[in-house]
Amino acid sequence: MTRAAVLGAGSWGTAFAQVLADAGTEVTVWGRRPEVVRSIEEDHANPGYLPDHQLPESVRATTDVAAACEGADLVVLGIHSQTLRDSLTGWGAVLGSEATVVSLMKGIELGTGQRMSQVIAETAGIDPARVAVVSGPNLAREIAERQPSASVVACADSARADAVAEACDARYFRPYTSADVVGVEIGGAVKNVVALAVGMARGMGLGDNTSAMLITRGLAEITRLGSALGADPTTFLGLAGAGDLVATCSSTLSRNHSVGLRLGRGEPVEEILASQNQVAEGVTSCRSILALAQQHQIPMPIAAAVVGVVHEGVSVEATAERLMSRVRKAEQY
Amino acid sequence: MTRAAVLGAGSWGTAFAQVLADAGTEVTVWGRRPEVVRSIEEDHANPGYLPDHQLPESVRATTDVAAACEGADLVVLGIHSQTLRDSLTGWGAVLGSEATVVSLMKGIELGTGQRMSQVIAETAGIDPARVAVVSGPNLAREIAERQPSASVVACADSARADAVAEACDARYFRPYTSADVVGVEIGGAVKNVVALAVGMARGMGLGDNTSAMLITRGLAEITRLGSALGADPTTFLGLAGAGDLVATCSSTLSRNHSVGLRLGRGEPVEEILASQNQVAEGVTSCRSILALAQQHQIPMPIAAAVVGVVHEGVSVEATAERLMSRVRKAEQY
Repeated sequence: MTRAAVLGAGSWGTAFAQVLADAGTEVTVWGRRPEVVRSIEEDHANPGYLPDHQLPESVRATTDVAAACEGADLVVLGIHSQTLRDSLTGWGAVLGSEATVVSLMKGIELGTGQRMSQVIAETAGIDPARVAVVSGPNLAREIAERQPSASVVACADSARADAVAEACDARYFRPYTSADVVGVEIGGAVKNVVALAVGMARGMGLGDNTSAMLITRGLAEITRLGSALGADPTTFLGLAGAGDLVATCSSTLSRNHSVGLRLGRGEPVEEILASQNQVAEGVTSCRSILALAQQHQIPMPIAAAVVGVVHEGVSVEATAERLMSRVRKAEQY
Repeated sequence: MTRAAVLGAGSWGTAFAQVLADAGTEVTVWGRRPEVVRSIEEDHANPGYLPDHQLPESVRATTDVAAACEGADLVVLGIHSQTLRDSLTGWGAVLGSEATVVSLMKGIELGTGQRMSQVIAETAGIDPARVAVVSGPNLAREIAERQPSASVVACADSARADAVAEACDARYFRPYTSADVVGVEIGGAVKNVVALAVGMARGMGLGDNTSAMLITRGLAEITRLGSALGADPTTFLGLAGAGDLVATCSSTLSRNHSVGLRLGRGEPVEEILASQNQVAEGVTSCRSILALAQQHQIPMPIAAAVVGVVHEGVSVEATAERLMSRVRKAEQY
């Protein structure tokens, strides 16, 4: 039987632990907070992240990261993208010498511009081909409810991609495999920035055409950046590209979308950020993504507009006006 | 000044006439029904299709198709896809010898499997390079309200594509040009079938992950079919592919989505169709699209599922179960 450790007891880590358990994989969740771990162990629940939801009894939990990883075939990382490097450094050699390391994280590290799999391989000193990433239209709440969904498991080593897919192939969760780690990670990271832009448009009272335009032109920006970084452009047509983007931009469950909505309604940035107990990923990542784009000379007008509104005090009205008045041209990627 | 005739006074024909007028083009709308024409001419309104909306006074209307087309640089067709051939045959030589013919229509002709631009070129006996198509995330109601939107103008003749884009470049409507007529038309036609599937899932109570999965795998089907027919696959990443698909599948304004919703809730097909005064395009086109796919040996499981539910009495539950239980594999297009 496959054994998996899930490091991180947030909403997606917990929901993915359920998927693994439902697929017949033995799962132990590591959590930092004793009360969360106790709740998973004793009540089979994680009410802070998945309220009113019962987890399978087979999902175990511990605050001891080494114990969680002991003998694991898969070590799944579902922690904060900007603290990943520190966490991995602090944990030492818990990833073992053989386990496949699976990243659930969506983000680009500030300062280095690295994708999460790069941070993992570099910090843990392991072969990048041991790192797999899972990404797709996977709102944690709906996965927990066992609604039909699909995702992409990407790994340079196809045997490891297959093994991860096998381990999470639950009746309601359909994993497709891919070799395009770069594409899958860029799709997952940049979609949060586009979701901020779509939220802003909705907050301004604009409808489905405007959202679809932003999603599509956002997808073009993602594709341009990803291709420049070595991704396969067709990845962005898929679940980890268009799929995740559409789910995130449609959902009222997305934090990025909600922050955008409030910005669009005219609330000051400081007020919105102060009211959130967890920072929306796109608020942080938009800067590292724009820096990466500039470094590769890739135009990303929507990402630039989001950085302008979130970090430079530009008004949403001025931003909307500027985006619509660009020169007419052929559609391209 | 550019002169345009818009043949068809439905919601999209009328809204596009407003876009042309707002872009500084002289526009005459042809309508079959005298009361609709009178309403546009005298009240600057088309309350049957765009209720509570005031049209620009410069938009003229007539029931005389030859008068509408007289001296027009652009003849825009916004009529029913399945009656296009009969209408064009009945009108004779109204398209003139020089005008660019612009199709707003989304569909595949039953029986012949032809795209709308093919029906136009064949029936009117004109060079296919004189036919342009306009398609994108363009819900008529929101365009009429002048919400920011974008679209693709595709024509084999790039000078004609530019001229059409120039003629409809209004402040709130941003036209991109393309040479990929096949891709733009396939995107516009097949999205209605996917919208039926997404509506069914919503009607069954499923959320944003399932919709995003259907949209993404539907986009893969569109891309496979389009590529087999000679389209550029990157077109489907764009406004006439992903963009139109996302807008149609998100919108409660879409007839196809609404029909799907009622099917998902368990209403019998016959009852739904009997209650509609206008047939949802996907209900008709799903059969011609599936036939086209089979002819080119392209697997389209979502389109096949829609045909099953709409035309062959298969239940939505059995269909959902079958779609989720397909063999696991690499993600591909």
